Amino acid sequence: MKFTLLHSDPKSKARAGSVTTDHGEIQTPIFMPVGTAGTVKAVHQRELKEDVEAQIILGNTYHLYLRPGLEILEKAGGLHKFNGWDRPILTDSGGYQVFSLAGTRKINEEGVVFKSHIDGSKHQFTPENVMDIQRSIGADIIMAFDECTPYPCEFGYARKSMEMTHRWLKRCIDRFDSTEGKYGYHQSLFPIVQGSVYPDLRKQSAEFIASCDREGNAIGGLSVGEPAEMMYEMTEQVTDILPSAKPRYLMGVGTPANILECIALGVDMFDCVMPTRNARNGMLFTSEGILNMRNEKWKDDFSPIDPTIGGYVSTFYSKAYLRHLTISKEILAAQIASIHNLSFYLWLVKEARKHIIEGDFSVWKDQMVKKVSTRL
Amino acid sequence: MKFTLLHSDPKSKARAGSVTTDHGEIQTPIFMPVGTAGTVKAVHQRELKEDVEAQIILGNTYHLYLRPGLEILEKAGGLHKFNGWDRPILTDSGGYQVFSLAGTRKINEEGVVFKSHIDGSKHQFTPENVMDIQRSIGADIIMAFDECTPYPCEFGYARKSMEMTHRWLKRCIDRFDSTEGKYGYHQSLFPIVQGSVYPDLRKQSAEFIASCDREGNAIGGLSVGEPAEMMYEMTEQVTDILPSAKPRYLMGVGTPANILECIALGVDMFDCVMPTRNARNGMLFTSEGILNMRNEKWKDDFSPIDPTIGGYVSTFYSKAYLRHLTISKEILAAQIASIHNLSFYLWLVKEARKHIIEGDFSVWKDQMVKKVSTRL
Repeated sequence: MKFTLLHSDPKSKARAGSVTTDHGEIQTPIFMPVGTAGTVKAVHQRELKEDVEAQIILGNTYHLYLRPGLEILEKAGGLHKFNGWDRPILTDSGGYQVFSLAGTRKINEEGVVFKSHIDGSKHQFTPENVMDIQRSIGADIIMAFDECTPYPCEFGYARKSMEMTHRWLKRCIDRFDSTEGKYGYHQSLFPIVQGSVYPDLRKQSAEFIASCDREGNAIGGLSVGEPAEMMYEMTEQVTDILPSAKPRYLMGVGTPANILECIALGVDMFDCVMPTRNARNGMLFTSEGILNMRNEKWKDDFSPIDPTIGGYVSTFYSKAYLRHLTISKEILAAQIASIHNLSFYLWLVKEARKHIIEGDFSVWKDQMVKKVSTRL
Repeated sequence: MKFTLLHSDPKSKARAGSVTTDHGEIQTPIFMPVGTAGTVKAVHQRELKEDVEAQIILGNTYHLYLRPGLEILEKAGGLHKFNGWDRPILTDSGGYQVFSLAGTRKINEEGVVFKSHIDGSKHQFTPENVMDIQRSIGADIIMAFDECTPYPCEFGYARKSMEMTHRWLKRCIDRFDSTEGKYGYHQSLFPIVQGSVYPDLRKQSAEFIASCDREGNAIGGLSVGEPAEMMYEMTEQVTDILPSAKPRYLMGVGTPANILECIALGVDMFDCVMPTRNARNGMLFTSEGILNMRNEKWKDDFSPIDPTIGGYVSTFYSKAYLRHLTISKEILAAQIASIHNLSFYLWLVKEARKHIIEGDFSVWKDQMVKKVSTRL
């Protein structure tokens, strides 16, 4: 994997770069649509490429491990072959879902024992087997196994958890470095900075993560309920420490405004379920602001959803039609809104990149943050 | 509207023809995907054209009248403008849904008073206002308001109902012929043969319908629970009477085998929710037979869904991947299965048409009926 830094914004920490993987290039800053169980919900693979113009998607280790399971994924030749997505894939470590979805779970130094939310069956994730599982899934970028602390989180717990995440990281690295990819292409391991909302811990964690010298680095444990300002503060502190020659991935963030602000703080990669999840609830992110498609005001607005961002879905369908589909609980509503929201997120980071390269990112960003946060 | 009969099969009553409307040509025999509330469920309009290759779709008057309602549809300039489908549209009369979906309903000579299944509000359908409503929706082909008798149905009720349907037809024709299309293109009215499963009534009804001399004719009240052989018998009797110079539409039919058998009996147009509804339940119709996508046997079958019929969805996605999506209740499962099933239905009638023109329809039909009925 190769990261090339193309341009740095003089008035912020924003950067434009590119990440080269064996499945193709990713232009950063980038947003990665979440493909939980091997599918970005309600979006065809062809649409992800041609309409959304996604460059990399995310897979959830927890979900994929439980269903379809490693046997099927290995027989298929990995997730790329299984779902037909031939561009880069990043998988999370499964830790976040174990804590948020699984039934009874027990965490200790060895790892986490949990019960499947599907059938109650018992499983264990350890730093070692989570590396093996992600090798089998065949992601291009593999995440270290960590504990994502909740918010709020007591200092004592946050410190102990961070220290264990660091010990787990060493075990991840040992396992990762002593194994090989199963399908003939390169896989990279990204470690994750933790430390909750405590500057001291974040500093300590970022320094430790940086010292591991992997191909890219991630920031976890944010966007879990803390105020946005606190998230920005932690992010800024961490990006000051993480090496600039490597891509920085802020996990699970966020709203369009969050993404713009964190690009300004030196983040290169983002993922979030918000564009797809909110789409299924009738919330649209557009270049003019946020639309609630259940709102009566759209019932006879026959203008296209968002002509500015272009593309079939956003220019072909009208607000009135989408409102009708939303109110009627039609599947097509979820399809249109999901493609649109993802297209908008990808359009937004592409625009950000353009403005970083052109040198007027900061001015553009401040205007855009206001626009995309407006409720229409 | 113009119907051209291109070819008649020498060994059956099958015919190949074409219907020309102001929204384009329809090659018959044809299957019409059902677009209940202005959307063929889980399928984008672009996919309907480019993947399914649908030539005409159906809209349900009952649903469209309740939601989005006539005010919105008229403001939009009709259903074509509202949903972006620019090929022909046929609307049913709303009668079938009033009987199957609405709450308390009361039928008398004047029409039907019913309560909306959405909000319980009270409405009335009469032969006259159903013509007006379909004028407002802007369908290319408008159906007469009829009573679709259930199965089984006593002879006495079937006779009285048929007679009322005939009286309603006269009122439909009076209203239709004294009004005009609202959006500048031609609309045609198709009357409907009723008579339950009674040969005498069917004969009487078909003769009355034929005598009305409209641009096309429909057969209703079948595929409501009666044995297939009975449906074929009634259909054959009716097609013997309905003029050959006009298209014949068999409403609500059916399985792939039903469609092939009824093409052989001289039917030109079909519609059915089966390909889309069954798709959402994991049932796939393919050129090799019927697949239940929940079946364990597909879990590691990485072959494409149905390479014979071609097209993106049927050749790009594997059975194993679709099984995974189906088991995981992912929206994409409904999307893939819906597009595939509709593509298969459209492929089937296209093949039938080809064989009618080539002169070997009967032999091909008998082989195909066996194949498409096999459970794999």
